[in-house]
Amino acid sequence: MRSPKPFLLALGLAVVLPAAAQKSDYPIQAVPFTRVKLTDSFWLPRLKTNTDVTIPASFARCESTNRVKNFEMAAARQGKFATTFPFDDTDIYKTIEGASYSLSVYPDAKLDAYVDELIKKVGAAQEPDGYLYTARTIDPAHPHSWAGKERWEKERELSHELYNAGHLYEAAVAHYEATGKKTLLNIALKNADLVCAVFGPGKRSVAPGHEIVEMGLVKLYRVTGQPKYLTTAKFFLDARGQYKGYDPKSPDGWKNGQYWQDDKPVVAQTEAEGHAVRAEYLYSAMADVAALTGDKQLLAAVDTIWNNMVAKKMYVTGGTGAVGSGERFGANYELPNATAYNETCASVADVFWNERMFQLHGDSKYVDVLEKVLYNGLISGVGLDGKSFFYSNAMQIKSLDSYSYHDTEPARAGWFECSCCPTNLARLMPALPGYVYAQKGRSLYANLFVSGKASLTVNKQQVQLTQANNYPWDGGLKFTVDPSASAADFDLLVRIPGWARNEAMPSGLYTFEQPSAQRASIKVNGKIVDYQLKNGYAVLSRKWHRHDVVEVSLPMEVRRVHANPLVKDDLGKVALQRGPVMYCAEWQDNNGKASNIIVPAGTAFTASYQPGLLNGIETLTATVPVVQLDASGTSVSTAPRTLTAIPYYAWANRGKGEMTVWFPEKLTNLDLLSQPPAAAATAAK
Amino acid sequence: MRSPKPFLLALGLAVVLPAAAQKSDYPIQAVPFTRVKLTDSFWLPRLKTNTDVTIPASFARCESTNRVKNFEMAAARQGKFATTFPFDDTDIYKTIEGASYSLSVYPDAKLDAYVDELIKKVGAAQEPDGYLYTARTIDPAHPHSWAGKERWEKERELSHELYNAGHLYEAAVAHYEATGKKTLLNIALKNADLVCAVFGPGKRSVAPGHEIVEMGLVKLYRVTGQPKYLTTAKFFLDARGQYKGYDPKSPDGWKNGQYWQDDKPVVAQTEAEGHAVRAEYLYSAMADVAALTGDKQLLAAVDTIWNNMVAKKMYVTGGTGAVGSGERFGANYELPNATAYNETCASVADVFWNERMFQLHGDSKYVDVLEKVLYNGLISGVGLDGKSFFYSNAMQIKSLDSYSYHDTEPARAGWFECSCCPTNLARLMPALPGYVYAQKGRSLYANLFVSGKASLTVNKQQVQLTQANNYPWDGGLKFTVDPSASAADFDLLVRIPGWARNEAMPSGLYTFEQPSAQRASIKVNGKIVDYQLKNGYAVLSRKWHRHDVVEVSLPMEVRRVHANPLVKDDLGKVALQRGPVMYCAEWQDNNGKASNIIVPAGTAFTASYQPGLLNGIETLTATVPVVQLDASGTSVSTAPRTLTAIPYYAWANRGKGEMTVWFPEKLTNLDLLSQPPAAAATAAK
Repeated sequence: MRSPKPFLLALGLAVVLPAAAQKSDYPIQAVPFTRVKLTDSFWLPRLKTNTDVTIPASFARCESTNRVKNFEMAAARQGKFATTFPFDDTDIYKTIEGASYSLSVYPDAKLDAYVDELIKKVGAAQEPDGYLYTARTIDPAHPHSWAGKERWEKERELSHELYNAGHLYEAAVAHYEATGKKTLLNIALKNADLVCAVFGPGKRSVAPGHEIVEMGLVKLYRVTGQPKYLTTAKFFLDARGQYKGYDPKSPDGWKNGQYWQDDKPVVAQTEAEGHAVRAEYLYSAMADVAALTGDKQLLAAVDTIWNNMVAKKMYVTGGTGAVGSGERFGANYELPNATAYNETCASVADVFWNERMFQLHGDSKYVDVLEKVLYNGLISGVGLDGKSFFYSNAMQIKSLDSYSYHDTEPARAGWFECSCCPTNLARLMPALPGYVYAQKGRSLYANLFVSGKASLTVNKQQVQLTQANNYPWDGGLKFTVDPSASAADFDLLVRIPGWARNEAMPSGLYTFEQPSAQRASIKVNGKIVDYQLKNGYAVLSRKWHRHDVVEVSLPMEVRRVHANPLVKDDLGKVALQRGPVMYCAEWQDNNGKASNIIVPAGTAFTASYQPGLLNGIETLTATVPVVQLDASGTSVSTAPRTLTAIPYYAWANRGKGEMTVWFPEKLTNLDLLSQPPAAAATAAK
Repeated sequence: MRSPKPFLLALGLAVVLPAAAQKSDYPIQAVPFTRVKLTDSFWLPRLKTNTDVTIPASFARCESTNRVKNFEMAAARQGKFATTFPFDDTDIYKTIEGASYSLSVYPDAKLDAYVDELIKKVGAAQEPDGYLYTARTIDPAHPHSWAGKERWEKERELSHELYNAGHLYEAAVAHYEATGKKTLLNIALKNADLVCAVFGPGKRSVAPGHEIVEMGLVKLYRVTGQPKYLTTAKFFLDARGQYKGYDPKSPDGWKNGQYWQDDKPVVAQTEAEGHAVRAEYLYSAMADVAALTGDKQLLAAVDTIWNNMVAKKMYVTGGTGAVGSGERFGANYELPNATAYNETCASVADVFWNERMFQLHGDSKYVDVLEKVLYNGLISGVGLDGKSFFYSNAMQIKSLDSYSYHDTEPARAGWFECSCCPTNLARLMPALPGYVYAQKGRSLYANLFVSGKASLTVNKQQVQLTQANNYPWDGGLKFTVDPSASAADFDLLVRIPGWARNEAMPSGLYTFEQPSAQRASIKVNGKIVDYQLKNGYAVLSRKWHRHDVVEVSLPMEVRRVHANPLVKDDLGKVALQRGPVMYCAEWQDNNGKASNIIVPAGTAFTASYQPGLLNGIETLTATVPVVQLDASGTSVSTAPRTLTAIPYYAWANRGKGEMTVWFPEKLTNLDLLSQPPAAAATAAK
């Protein structure tokens, strides 16, 4: 990473970082992605696939689907908007963002040049006053129907002008941080200046229809120090809950202000509600603004909403947004399996939000949630091939014979008409190194267990910290500390994950059936040390010398997980977890079915690493009763069979079929009348 | 029955039956209920229970729930409407109607006097110009909210003023025909004169919100011969499909004009649609007006609608109106089992409608449908005790553990806030004798196989026709013909039911798995006769002598019924029928469960009469595979067990539990993930 300072000077802007801005920010700061070089056998291949496959495929699709052409036409001020949604511009921004992170890990002159060319096209599409929105600029007299006749006119519900702006800002900051180039940032700032000129007290007001401009403005504020970006971000937060025009009699009951988190002022909101991605972008921005302004009301509100979400609205895989209609949070404990929506973008947003909550509070519970999302409901969104994606992430695929259009989709697709999820993954994956460590004063937080080398300054001392492990398959973690000087005095805070402390979720929404027989143990230089847990971290406070080695051993039993009994769909069912990884049974490993498996209490599991399976996974096997039908269809029996469970994230890489995360532990009521009608799907055609 | 003539004279009205009215009516006329005295062991006890229990209970409830008080307050023009619905007046009219039929079968001076008193109260509540609607008359300045500020103002959707009128007319005609008294008829005519004065071409127009006034006006026309009643009935039919004010964006998509059969002119309607009871009252009136006016368009429309209903929208029990929300017909083939609505009133209406269709066309298929309704989905609406009722009639009760509020109710209730169904049963049951025979010229139709004695005139000859049978349990029918003279020349048309001719439904919506090995056979005076089938009737054309005996033998095998495969819920399933009676399995006879029974192809059934069970029923038994769980809940097996099936109408007389009409024949896809969550109902509390 190049320091932003030269750039600020180079920009020639009269930028002075105000004292307030310098003082008040997240008390804990992440060690930036540019400082952490991965060697991890789990993540590095994924980042490489993202670089080699996902990003090029994403750019290629932006070209082939006319997303790039939209910018070219906007530059020429002629043509006809060539894609479906006015927010299709953001796929380009998001892929540039991903490519920027990637360039910092894997320098690539050709990609760098391609991105430069794209940025030129983006700049050419920008109107003289900074407005950038191809759906209108191409032909302002005949804009896209969602765009309205006038600028910003439909921003509340349909136009997504500020959503496009937000993604532009995010991409611009990433591109600048990764490459030091100001090309995209200049475009973003020009646009942001227009936004700040148009919106504000006494000027135009709106609660942005799809949040993200708030987070984006905060990033511009951090880079430039210009207070107006922060002020405008806060203005957009405060704008929520003011509009009174929603139709309470809307045919879609949920499609009132709640859908847009616009039914109450943000400080009065208490539940994770409405469209999940929008919501979690909003909550991320609330955390940002609370950190930067010290607004205690905002902080209290975002804490309350987080507690609601993790205690009542999150799947055991970390997925959020249970309801497909409206892509939204359901009611408390409404977590249906067959119809789980779980948008991949919501998992991305959840990573953003939980990272910010951690930076606010320094509690590992936020990282526990982040890790759950990361190893399960997030990476399930992309196939092992790096170019097939889930928009929604299933919890259960019943027999395809009884598949209903409400049920979650059983197979990944290459791209979507609304292709937010692939490009969101493309930008998140290469940013992963930035989530591994964080620091505050003399504390260095080791949050994620990802092998690699970090070069950082802690307590004013240069230190290199090396992680080597085989996580998430092994519980043995090794940290090697190498101060530049002969010694360095700081606290290493190693996260002891909630799951290793017998907490399946910080909230109690999910619980382990039994406590583990083991406790996480820590050795320093080969000697067991006693450690104090503080906010979920083992605090190792000492003067570190070169090659000091910390070894952590996390208990890796297979854990039986139960849901809060108010989650109706999971009653009497068990899920399987090992380390941070949630498991599922997929048809391929289980004689073609997964919906016939019972996992009784006391089932003994064997975990074993299968290097040849699904790019290398730890499988769980056990002998369990499986319900079988004979050929006549009139005789049912249970027989012992081997259940093979695979990591949830790895499902749907071998064709379409049954899958389940939750298994019945015992049957209390086998009801043939509740069975799907025989061959209904076929007959309905 | 007393002839209407003296009454017409007594009324002092200048009534002349117009030539047109005398000529044009149903080509086939029912032999009136007053001419048929039942001895039937199946029906007579039911009529007696209706007289001894249902009608007194209904009157008692009309008193205790303030329905009578509403009339008293209206008479005094003071008070506050004391019940929930403005149409609660009709419960009194309908019970008077039932009591009237009953009085003609079982004369009862006390009941007669009570009815006279009630009629006085009804008369006192009538306004001087004939208006009769207690919800407004009690306090015209503050009428019930559904009634609107002005008379008739909310008739289209809410007030039910004309619905009350229609039931008044029906009751008045029944009371007059049964007792010869004109008291209630005079009230009805005074009201009808007002209705005819208010509504008509160039005057006020409305499509009555809940049909029945049309049928009622036709009855007044028949009794009085006054054309205006028929004209106004037709005017109301023609008023449908004219109003353009329904909100096509209504939150309830169905709650546009279609719900009220008001989306198209009746002659353009092709499907049974909207609220089922309203619809079938409308179709009955369409048949009436088509018969009386010879309107061919109307006739074509009602034929088309009937074909739609019996081919696509009727349960195998004869129930109609599949969808609870709106108490309405679903889409074609939308016949869900767990949530079947099947309002008892819709079965009553269906009897009315099919009787009229038969009278129009002389085809037995209408009586086949009527009989299916009568022996199954209609009498299931009343418990054996005569005082517990189903508003909706289930096709399936799953395990009560997994009971959902959408599912059909599993137990009868004593009365309902909207108590249309009990009073509709109270008026239909004692009218049954009127459905047994019909005649046209020299043809005497024997439609229902109900033991009893009919005294009638056919082809100008006095004849007594006696039926003696043990129907529906036995297929042996005996008819004894006794002309008053030494001989009588006429055709006896004995209905050979569709089910005895291998047609489970006239429409093919349901089919038998195999044709019967037998054909219905007929003997006259002990000798087998050959017979021709004409419109479903065996035509026995001869000169009949005293004590001539016709014996009919109907094949009574247990039949396996399959639904059209487009009925998704019945795919792969079988229903059981014997004679006209549909069977079900109820928990009480099957070790506490019905949802675990498989009825494979080729299952051999034994039918046997059980005099001590459920007031005497024929049960079906067979050895079938039943799915069982062991105590651990982890072992499932199929074991041979005795299935005992009982007549569908007799279920829910022994407590709440599982029941099913349709059984899986074989399982193709046992999917534990589709099972209801264990003890969901309990946990959800």
